Amino acid sequence: MTRSLYFEDLQPGFKVETRAATVTDRDVAEFALRFDPQPMHLDAETAAANQFGGLIASGFHTLSLGFALFFRLDILRDSNLGSPGMEEVRWVRPLRPGDTVHMIAEVTAARASQSKPDRGVVWMRHDLYNQDGQLVMSANCMHMVKRLA
Amino acid sequence: MTRSLYFEDLQPGFKVETRAATVTDRDVAEFALRFDPQPMHLDAETAAANQFGGLIASGFHTLSLGFALFFRLDILRDSNLGSPGMEEVRWVRPLRPGDTVHMIAEVTAARASQSKPDRGVVWMRHDLYNQDGQLVMSANCMHMVKRLA
Repeated sequence: MTRSLYFEDLQPGFKVETRAATVTDRDVAEFALRFDPQPMHLDAETAAANQFGGLIASGFHTLSLGFALFFRLDILRDSNLGSPGMEEVRWVRPLRPGDTVHMIAEVTAARASQSKPDRGVVWMRHDLYNQDGQLVMSANCMHMVKRLA
Repeated sequence: MTRSLYFEDLQPGFKVETRAATVTDRDVAEFALRFDPQPMHLDAETAAANQFGGLIASGFHTLSLGFALFFRLDILRDSNLGSPGMEEVRWVRPLRPGDTVHMIAEVTAARASQSKPDRGVVWMRHDLYNQDGQLVMSANCMHMVKRLA
């Protein structure tokens, strides 16, 4: 990226794809121990007998990892004013140790702020796919971004 | 908790409060380095000049920490079948290093599954508050839970 993108750049149809990342056994266990110590994320024996048939990453790990790939694109480097929130977060398929995922993010709506002329809200659909091209997670996230000066 | 709660226990009005946890400088930096390496989470000097007036935790850290408090209640220990997703995630106020937060979670709706008689979806509103009683984050999360046998 040569420069950060701004509100004017992030109009409906704008789409980016991130690099891919592989999640390891250790990644899954570390996140779970810290934030989501349920057996389905930590106990291989219990997990083998559950409806997923094995260990799966915490949904919050899946979210964090997916958005990590997005933030590392660095496209909002100088323009990001934070996010008011998300809608339609969906954990569609389990993220399993060994899976390699990438995110595709696409602007679905962009609205200039009425009260603050220096910024606007950009809605992006963030889809996380695994190595088989299957949708793992999806979320519609608001990004508050600066307008070009 | 003497026993895990099930679908029948988790009806509208059911409400729990978690213990409190304090987020440290190091917690904020560690999470950000791994998942959200933006200056507002990592660079004190840049952050001091932004609209938040200082370092703030990643929104995904705030989410993960809030739900960590909830999962550690262990009330879904034997009944949790995973979550299909969340709606209305709102980052209302920044989570700052040194803040002490707790979560209040309340069932807003519970629907038995039509296709699978052993389970139901429980909607819970999860509100994260800081030490001043201010709402930091809110999310409506679906929990797929087992019915009592």
